[in-house]
Amino acid sequence: MKINYEFGSDNHSGVHPDIMKAIESVNVGYSVAYGDDEYTTSAVKKFKEHFGKDIDVYFVGNGTAANILGLKSVTNSFNSIFCAETAHMNVHECCGPEKFTGCKLTVIPTLDGKLTVDLIKPYLIGFGDPHMAQPKVISITQATECGTVYLKEEIKDISDFAHRNKMLLHMDGARLCNAAVGLNVDLAAITRDAGVDVLSFGGTKNGMMFGDAVIFFDKDLSKNFEFIRKQGMHLTSKMRYISAQFEALLSNDLWLKNAKHANEMAQILFNEVINISGINITQKVQVNAVFASLPKEIIKKIQKKYGFHVFNEQNSEVRWMCSFNTSKKDVMDFVEAIKEAFIK
Amino acid sequence: MKINYEFGSDNHSGVHPDIMKAIESVNVGYSVAYGDDEYTTSAVKKFKEHFGKDIDVYFVGNGTAANILGLKSVTNSFNSIFCAETAHMNVHECCGPEKFTGCKLTVIPTLDGKLTVDLIKPYLIGFGDPHMAQPKVISITQATECGTVYLKEEIKDISDFAHRNKMLLHMDGARLCNAAVGLNVDLAAITRDAGVDVLSFGGTKNGMMFGDAVIFFDKDLSKNFEFIRKQGMHLTSKMRYISAQFEALLSNDLWLKNAKHANEMAQILFNEVINISGINITQKVQVNAVFASLPKEIIKKIQKKYGFHVFNEQNSEVRWMCSFNTSKKDVMDFVEAIKEAFIK
Amino acid sequence: MKINYEFGSDNHSGVHPDIMKAIESVNVGYSVAYGDDEYTTSAVKKFKEHFGKDIDVYFVGNGTAANILGLKSVTNSFNSIFCAETAHMNVHECCGPEKFTGCKLTVIPTLDGKLTVDLIKPYLIGFGDPHMAQPKVISITQATECGTVYLKEEIKDISDFAHRNKMLLHMDGARLCNAAVGLNVDLAAITRDAGVDVLSFGGTKNGMMFGDAVIFFDKDLSKNFEFIRKQGMHLTSKMRYISAQFEALLSNDLWLKNAKHANEMAQILFNEVINISGINITQKVQVNAVFASLPKEIIKKIQKKYGFHVFNEQNSEVRWMCSFNTSKKDVMDFVEAIKEAFIK
Amino acid sequence: MKINYEFGSDNHSGVHPDIMKAIESVNVGYSVAYGDDEYTTSAVKKFKEHFGKDIDVYFVGNGTAANILGLKSVTNSFNSIFCAETAHMNVHECCGPEKFTGCKLTVIPTLDGKLTVDLIKPYLIGFGDPHMAQPKVISITQATECGTVYLKEEIKDISDFAHRNKMLLHMDGARLCNAAVGLNVDLAAITRDAGVDVLSFGGTKNGMMFGDAVIFFDKDLSKNFEFIRKQGMHLTSKMRYISAQFEALLSNDLWLKNAKHANEMAQILFNEVINISGINITQKVQVNAVFASLPKEIIKKIQKKYGFHVFNEQNSEVRWMCSFNTSKKDVMDFVEAIKEAFIK
Repeated sequence: MKINYEFGSDNHSGVHPDIMKAIESVNVGYSVAYGDDEYTTSAVKKFKEHFGKDIDVYFVGNGTAANILGLKSVTNSFNSIFCAETAHMNVHECCGPEKFTGCKLTVIPTLDGKLTVDLIKPYLIGFGDPHMAQPKVISITQATECGTVYLKEEIKDISDFAHRNKMLLHMDGARLCNAAVGLNVDLAAITRDAGVDVLSFGGTKNGMMFGDAVIFFDKDLSKNFEFIRKQGMHLTSKMRYISAQFEALLSNDLWLKNAKHANEMAQILFNEVINISGINITQKVQVNAVFASLPKEIIKKIQKKYGFHVFNEQNSEVRWMCSFNTSKKDVMDFVEAIKEAFIK
Repeated sequence: MKINYEFGSDNHSGVHPDIMKAIESVNVGYSVAYGDDEYTTSAVKKFKEHFGKDIDVYFVGNGTAANILGLKSVTNSFNSIFCAETAHMNVHECCGPEKFTGCKLTVIPTLDGKLTVDLIKPYLIGFGDPHMAQPKVISITQATECGTVYLKEEIKDISDFAHRNKMLLHMDGARLCNAAVGLNVDLAAITRDAGVDVLSFGGTKNGMMFGDAVIFFDKDLSKNFEFIRKQGMHLTSKMRYISAQFEALLSNDLWLKNAKHANEMAQILFNEVINISGINITQKVQVNAVFASLPKEIIKKIQKKYGFHVFNEQNSEVRWMCSFNTSKKDVMDFVEAIKEAFIK
Repeated sequence: MKINYEFGSDNHSGVHPDIMKAIESVNVGYSVAYGDDEYTTSAVKKFKEHFGKDIDVYFVGNGTAANILGLKSVTNSFNSIFCAETAHMNVHECCGPEKFTGCKLTVIPTLDGKLTVDLIKPYLIGFGDPHMAQPKVISITQATECGTVYLKEEIKDISDFAHRNKMLLHMDGARLCNAAVGLNVDLAAITRDAGVDVLSFGGTKNGMMFGDAVIFFDKDLSKNFEFIRKQGMHLTSKMRYISAQFEALLSNDLWLKNAKHANEMAQILFNEVINISGINITQKVQVNAVFASLPKEIIKKIQKKYGFHVFNEQNSEVRWMCSFNTSKKDVMDFVEAIKEAFIK
Repeated sequence: MKINYEFGSDNHSGVHPDIMKAIESVNVGYSVAYGDDEYTTSAVKKFKEHFGKDIDVYFVGNGTAANILGLKSVTNSFNSIFCAETAHMNVHECCGPEKFTGCKLTVIPTLDGKLTVDLIKPYLIGFGDPHMAQPKVISITQATECGTVYLKEEIKDISDFAHRNKMLLHMDGARLCNAAVGLNVDLAAITRDAGVDVLSFGGTKNGMMFGDAVIFFDKDLSKNFEFIRKQGMHLTSKMRYISAQFEALLSNDLWLKNAKHANEMAQILFNEVINISGINITQKVQVNAVFASLPKEIIKKIQKKYGFHVFNEQNSEVRWMCSFNTSKKDVMDFVEAIKEAFIK
């Protein structure tokens, strides 16, 4: 039987039609490679409309690269980077951050994927002691890997704390659009305005084919990025095909519409499953993911029809994700399958 | 005035219509991310048709990544990698190979971009001496960065030499298709059959949008590649869009037709400029590039209309490249512009 | 007033007279550099007497190098290394392990610096998943950075667990001699016989001037070490002066006598301070260190006379260490100073 | 038969008695580890007497570490470091510079181990081009690995050239004392006064047991060095034993006397062998080494009695080195053995 992957991850979805159209539309004639083309110039302008004039923006191939290369640009090899234990860069980048930056990841346990100043403080030691990795960056993920979001004020607290300690705030924004929609704010509000210094802005989980952006809100921080990007194997030759995607995503509120739809589908899913006896919702549903724990044997039954990720084997917690092209019918079919698993 | 980029590089061209169509055709429904999808399985099969059954193939984002990650898979940090002074990995990868592998590039001067056993031999020292980087890989580019090609026998000589010395042969095949067409052989003849161990197979310069393949002809060499690819920031989530491109490129002789056309256009260009007094052809025209030296002031004049690369400032040598969608008219217009530059 | 450093660290002490004599005794004539000398051959033999015939031993400059280079020899860049949160390699090697190996340190909180299988198990995830660092090494410190020791059986439990999971057991033995003395066993009992695969054997904290040894109990693991040591900047030219020290340390039970003395002095100190009201002993005193928490203002008073390390600012915990040349009078003077601090 | 190693390398010699005495003299009581001790403070002062007040000096374990860690302090991972093909850092550091800095070594062939501005110029390309490693450091060795020396003016030419191009001048001074003596100048004349920015100052080849110094002539360049040294595994705990050696070497002209003697012995050797038919002196004898080519079978005969290094297999060139404790009788015995090899 064919397995369905609608709820496995938001990157199991395809490319949004408007973005595909944008790709096709730039497929004419010759363009200088490596980003010195008009499409890239235009896409960068579009970013400045959303994030402010004084930013530097660079495109790379994917989110892992955006994280690692952004961090490399602002660290020395003897620094430490603080992140939540659940952070993508800690769990799912195969120690690429350590390998490429040389830095230590200082990993902080959380309940919901969210760092706070109180959680961070005990780890803030060793400044000036040559025996110890020097704290330099705090990295948060918005929305988090647990499907939760930071309020603007929560981000501001962390960035103020970082800056008081001569550290920087990095944000992994693989699902930034979902967070902004969830909070009903614009993209700058929870990045630039909240004191973020370096941002990975992801598009793939929100309808793009490939490509991520690294945004520096302080131009001093980006001065080496072009070299680091090339050395880091992420200077794309036919850049126009990334640029066109971002242009489309950031135009006509497409970023917002896609994220809004995904979030809404997760709400529907949440509302349907919350009352199923045997399912325990483990995280707030603030964006496009539902986290739930349910009996192992039930999980196995559902997985015969639907592929999805067991987030935590120990407490039998699963992650169900919605995307821009999840339909209400998809959700209801999935709920049906879940219910069936409990019955049979 | 608008600058024309037809002859700047083969990656200034766009995406071939058949490849664009292939991309669109897989944009349906959901697929598991990261390569566990049917399109990738199918594309890998296609590679096996061309390169042999016993290979391992992995897709990455671009050619620099293919080179560096392929080399990382077969080296220890204390090894040395031999390459021509003109090699892309030496000149144009911003010391990414050194950074990511830790290895020394042992750089060998050549006249035409081609290594030979005689050129390599004097550098083959230090085996077993812990003070010295341990020779492990010889890397050649086919076609070379100078637009020349290795004959099958020439490759075989080098691979035999490498293997006798317990070294491996790596090939940067960013323009392998052009070389195969230039030599009128199939893709396996100058790779697998000639003793190549690891191959970067490029598609972008031959009509693809993005994506490169790393092919291991000995499966023992690839056992760590999946981890190295992820750590190396090149595990693409929506892999199907790379796979579909390779499927198209390797079907219906598209790889061959595109390369053949590009090579033919270079021949026409060569035939036209060889008789222009003041132009000195500096390399054999064996694939899709013409290398020529001409007076600096003439270069400057031409560059007002056409963007292209000065390959070597010292001898005033330029590189003119053709691609799958260079037209005969493009060539004749360019020749016209060159001639004009000499007159005015 | 002059500050006293007797209890600051066991490496604040000087060089034991027998070791100094050994250094002087080899200062005759010429010896081939880099370890191909008779003194090194002899010292290696001495190691084999203690640790078994089938080992490989290499000398490096210090303990941090022994740890990092030993680990590099047995890992790939995409591996993870498990260690206690208090491990020297996590806290006091300035992320050198991450930088030089590329690996992630998977850091496990403990109460007493000691890992157990139960503590490790929850972190043992991700085998075969390319997104995740691949678990490869468990590293324990004997004696621990908290002054506690692993019983032979406790080590065996961990090594069995490691080997069942195709992992290796690394031991940081900066104070291995103190541990062996504390347990009243020989050096092989808690290393080779307990399933340790790679050992850093330190001498500096037990009376040597400089130098550490990396011991591989499985020769397959050491095949690249000589290259890694040189690339890692730790191939000493005048090796005989390290070798002579180890020869002396491992002869006539000097390693044992020195460690025994240091441990005994710590017991005396412990017995003296345990009854001082306001001092809380925080760790078992099993080797040459006393860990205690006491009021911050008392610490400050004592530190006007004696330099020592505040191990944990949060719970006001200090570390007092004894060494081979701590005298009983030193201890009593120190106790006096502590008592005075409470009174005045 | 016992092989003699008097002429194998200047690090085959032992430790000068005055330096041994200095080591013994600091072996009293307790000192804070890691360099915060009075002996280190005093040794640093001594360095300032020789090299100027505004320097920063740090001690590391050996010359390879001094080179690599000094270079790491002043480079980013995407830089290139220019050096002669014969440079120790290129030939005999097992690609440690590449591994630890990430940089490319741009290797320049020379006839005598000496770089010149004219030799360097053709390699100075790519500034600002993200595809290319960014030139940052020129490294020269004084005296060179070929036994030749740079005049002060020659160094000045290179440093001026470096600074005009926003690059830095690094000097590997493993045999700086021999060079200064050979040129009859003080140590500052051919370092600080000649525009050197970072210097590795070696003592081992001139009578020390272990230890090297990294000197920064611009304090801005050293701001990260303490972290890089620790991360780079070269923060020695019992630092006083390195400091005492440097104190002795830089006092009472010991550095000068030792180097002078070694140079004189090389002159005697040179004068003796120059007239032996069949021996061709291949480099100027300006310090403590004689380079000569002679028939392979003669080399083999001599090597039955004397161990020494074949510098270049291809032209059958050997290196004979003298040290501070080479005696005139040693030289004459060696000459006798050479002559015999030709006769028998």
